[in-house]
Amino acid sequence: MARWAPGATARLAEAALALFAERGFSGVTVGEIAAAAGVTERTFFRHFATKEDVLFSQGSEIVALLAAALDGAPADAGPGELLAAAVAALAGWFEPDRELHRRRTAVIAADPALHERELLKQQAIAAGIVDRLRARGVPAERASVLAFTGLALFQTVYRGWVDDRARTSLATRLARAQRDLARDLAVPVSPS
Amino acid sequence: MARWAPGATARLAEAALALFAERGFSGVTVGEIAAAAGVTERTFFRHFATKEDVLFSQGSEIVALLAAALDGAPADAGPGELLAAAVAALAGWFEPDRELHRRRTAVIAADPALHERELLKQQAIAAGIVDRLRARGVPAERASVLAFTGLALFQTVYRGWVDDRARTSLATRLARAQRDLARDLAVPVSPS
Repeated sequence: MARWAPGATARLAEAALALFAERGFSGVTVGEIAAAAGVTERTFFRHFATKEDVLFSQGSEIVALLAAALDGAPADAGPGELLAAAVAALAGWFEPDRELHRRRTAVIAADPALHERELLKQQAIAAGIVDRLRARGVPAERASVLAFTGLALFQTVYRGWVDDRARTSLATRLARAQRDLARDLAVPVSPS
Repeated sequence: MARWAPGATARLAEAALALFAERGFSGVTVGEIAAAAGVTERTFFRHFATKEDVLFSQGSEIVALLAAALDGAPADAGPGELLAAAVAALAGWFEPDRELHRRRTAVIAADPALHERELLKQQAIAAGIVDRLRARGVPAERASVLAFTGLALFQTVYRGWVDDRARTSLATRLARAQRDLARDLAVPVSPS
């Protein structure tokens, strides 16, 4: 549960996810989450500004993680190596908490408004990657294609990973999917 | 203007886009659109169920176009060739109406609610491509990565194309971007 920060934040997030999974996001109150975690409602609001934040507060941590991975890549890294660095950092962040992410994903998928917010969050994260790639000298259009392709890869592979009983690592799955995609795309589109 | 269907529908869409571009989507009424096109409000509603539909009614035509392109591809076409067929069909559909699409895109970008609806529409179109690829025997995860990568490619290249004074064709731009992406992705992600 480290990724939701230690201590009371983690306990609250775990309690909330268990309740959301059982009764749906809108069927649970902040009071019930606080009670399940053994704290007061006021304590809940010291850790999360809203009930939604239990699901979405990690977005800024992911943005920072990706920025660090991209800015820290070797100076001579090409566009593909930069994407690989970003994807590897993401995989490392998600890997230890598969069960929690599985639960979070199911809660969001069951609620159209949450799904929409998740979609917008992912677009914002990809836009952040575009900025970092451009700062590293990747031309604008190529940076955008690459970042949003990274999002497509990650989203899809992530969905398979959270439900994978065989527990193939996220990094292994991503490497395989990227290899398949590169092969598939090598077929030229003829400009008619 | 053929893509918004001929006659009154086209005249209404053109009038609406000109007004939206000038005063923003929410600053224009259906009555004003009808008057600008020289028809009654009742006539407007025979062509579009809502004001939003002027911007979004083409979605179903795009879905049908993509389905036809994918279902009509040669029986031995691989995943990459199927994507190429879909992308080529899309490019052919957009190509003749660059100025109208430029205007539509600017109107949507200026309005967060419209932008969100456009995002959801694009996701639905990509999900439709996933279904068709699977029906053609492409494995689920690979179909999803491919369809959403196609969306990433198209979205980005499309944005450059609508503003391109040099008028490089959309198909040429897409072919170039796909080639660059295939090259970039060929860098392996090492599973750590």
